[in-house]
Amino acid sequence: MDIINNPSRSEWAQLLARPVADNTQIISTVQSVLDDVRMRGDEAVREYELRFDKASLTNLQVSDREIAEAEVLISEELKAAIATAIGNITKFHEAQLHYPPIIETTKGVKCWQKVVAIDKVGLYIPGGTAPLFSTVLMLAVPAKIAGCKEIVLCTPPNAEGKVNPAILYAASKAGANKIYKIGGVQAIAAMAYGTESVPKVYKIFGPGNPYVTTAKQIVSVKDVAIDMPAGPSEVAIIADSTQKPEIIAADMLSQAEHGTTSQSIVFTTDAELATHIKDEALRQCEASPRKEFISKSLENSRIFVLDNMEDVIDMSNEYAPEHLIISCKDYAAVGAQITNAGSVFLGHFTPESAGDYASGTNHTLPTSGYAKAYSGVNMDSFVKKITFQEITSEGLGNISRTIEVMAENESLFAHKYAVTVRKVH
Amino acid sequence: MDIINNPSRSEWAQLLARPVADNTQIISTVQSVLDDVRMRGDEAVREYELRFDKASLTNLQVSDREIAEAEVLISEELKAAIATAIGNITKFHEAQLHYPPIIETTKGVKCWQKVVAIDKVGLYIPGGTAPLFSTVLMLAVPAKIAGCKEIVLCTPPNAEGKVNPAILYAASKAGANKIYKIGGVQAIAAMAYGTESVPKVYKIFGPGNPYVTTAKQIVSVKDVAIDMPAGPSEVAIIADSTQKPEIIAADMLSQAEHGTTSQSIVFTTDAELATHIKDEALRQCEASPRKEFISKSLENSRIFVLDNMEDVIDMSNEYAPEHLIISCKDYAAVGAQITNAGSVFLGHFTPESAGDYASGTNHTLPTSGYAKAYSGVNMDSFVKKITFQEITSEGLGNISRTIEVMAENESLFAHKYAVTVRKVH
Repeated sequence: MDIINNPSRSEWAQLLARPVADNTQIISTVQSVLDDVRMRGDEAVREYELRFDKASLTNLQVSDREIAEAEVLISEELKAAIATAIGNITKFHEAQLHYPPIIETTKGVKCWQKVVAIDKVGLYIPGGTAPLFSTVLMLAVPAKIAGCKEIVLCTPPNAEGKVNPAILYAASKAGANKIYKIGGVQAIAAMAYGTESVPKVYKIFGPGNPYVTTAKQIVSVKDVAIDMPAGPSEVAIIADSTQKPEIIAADMLSQAEHGTTSQSIVFTTDAELATHIKDEALRQCEASPRKEFISKSLENSRIFVLDNMEDVIDMSNEYAPEHLIISCKDYAAVGAQITNAGSVFLGHFTPESAGDYASGTNHTLPTSGYAKAYSGVNMDSFVKKITFQEITSEGLGNISRTIEVMAENESLFAHKYAVTVRKVH
Repeated sequence: MDIINNPSRSEWAQLLARPVADNTQIISTVQSVLDDVRMRGDEAVREYELRFDKASLTNLQVSDREIAEAEVLISEELKAAIATAIGNITKFHEAQLHYPPIIETTKGVKCWQKVVAIDKVGLYIPGGTAPLFSTVLMLAVPAKIAGCKEIVLCTPPNAEGKVNPAILYAASKAGANKIYKIGGVQAIAAMAYGTESVPKVYKIFGPGNPYVTTAKQIVSVKDVAIDMPAGPSEVAIIADSTQKPEIIAADMLSQAEHGTTSQSIVFTTDAELATHIKDEALRQCEASPRKEFISKSLENSRIFVLDNMEDVIDMSNEYAPEHLIISCKDYAAVGAQITNAGSVFLGHFTPESAGDYASGTNHTLPTSGYAKAYSGVNMDSFVKKITFQEITSEGLGNISRTIEVMAENESLFAHKYAVTVRKVH
């Protein structure tokens, strides 16, 4: 974890570069699994489940009984927490619904957008040691609010063919209506192409390992929409001495624990604070049961000490962090100048983990600088906006000359004629 | 152009399949041009301009003098038409701007979305015989309204190194602020990676030939966002005997003239009307100066005669057309049931060409069935929605237990500690 003092602007891009994820080694493996599932459907899915998850499955779909069993296994404390999270996520996402007005652009020419849910969506939830039931909520709750009819969820089973009960419980509470015991590339393939038991969906959401991410990239080119390109998680923190180094370090570590490719960046104008943060981060790392793991990911972390707040803001916007914690005195004024970030956490009592679980905002966010062009998952992600126009005879008269002149100048004469023929009749 | 009577639902997918565009032959060519421009910048761009557009260029950027010259070359009639179109496009797109409210999801927990323009966008406008200045308006006008700071436009020059004056005039009126004489894959590469003269942008918009489309697909995987995947243009028409066959046929031809891979589909319950439409389309094709061209693309066209309006609507939603003209008596009721389409044209006086040029809606729309998951270009395409949250000490107290329990159950202990450490202080 380096402390870097006042780098020149020409050095910023290099200093802010993310650890590069090279997937060229795995593309052919991913492609072959995709092709195989496309050709052979469920039979291929079952073979890959046996090979990769050691699970021998007859039914790929989770049964109602399994969902009922999961409910028994979940503590009341966790049920209450999930209910609170669902409540806040629902409030925030429902408020995003917006029905644009009908606009009469010229007399007799009415135009509007109709907001329609994507009919079939697929949610991928990774397995592994940490069951990401919070991601289930972040994807299924807005899909349900949008009105998606088919909300398909795939997640890998364990070797006994069972899905983590917290995932099943969250999925059923949030409104996923078809849950499958399928993980990895075979899950992405099943949802992209459809199989005997898994419906083909129109858009796939959710995080995953490099194989899953590569599979999503490949299917997104021609077959199905995806939420966004995915990279390792990251946090940037803009801090001054009004926040305690211990808290800033804790925020860094809460990112570092995600994986060895995660990045935690601090921007500050206070050199002394920078030293304290570093000491504190190393101390907390030392005390952590996951010390070896976190110390490795802290190697990707950097503390930038800059001359003034203008540089701090510009450098943060250049980095375009997935998460941005603004823990300084003038946090509102600083926040107002942020133009590139996935989600922003304002003030001293707003840790990133609030947004990860329960504030109500979505935690599926653009990484790797994609925040320069992408939004995080929000209600727009689950709908299409179809434009409509209705023109009266008078309205067509009002714009017909414009259309005819433009069509003629683009040498599109049949376009012109489609107007002319309507005027004659 | 076949008339197909009452196909069974199991046959629909096959009958509605688009002509397949196979780009495997050109991927390696496209990749090599992309790599070369990435490595060698302007020098490579100039070489490809000489090779592909026969243009020997010193300055890649269009000068102010060239823009002023273009203005002189444009007729007053076309200037007036462009002004009307800009006015309507502006009215419709401005009305889409929406600033979501601040939501207090729990007492002391405030969440909101901040809408921010994408800083740098790149617009690609194809060259060729028909100068698509209307596409310039459809992309630059909303980019300007959104507040994008850098609106870069690339379009191929002719062999004299000149850009079509209508494109230059439209670009300057609509607000593109950097215009380059670069076409094809080298244009996509220049905007995706940046060169000495072309700024790297964060999102690329616009249509193109299979080379350009493939280049956009490749750069979208890791380097830059794109508007949407692109395929050949298409129209579907839902019609009954209240609309004249001559007009329906004219609408089919206005699509057919785009290119030999374009598709025009009609859905109707009236077998007699179907025959009249076919006769009329062949008659108009015969009379057209572009007969050979249009007759070829009409080969992709089909007229489906179905038993009832329910099948008509379902089949149209299954096709998910880029453009959908609803020219029947109950057009409003039918329109209300449309769930998959790019843009819908309601009633007897609403030709597709109205939306192509001047109604105010955007003509950059999802083709190839992508309308099942994608919207056409709209104001959302030029902005990001950054989520913000601000939590008070009391607010954190209200949700801290929820966060801690969920983090613990996901085995993310540092996430939990980032909350706990704030409560202690």
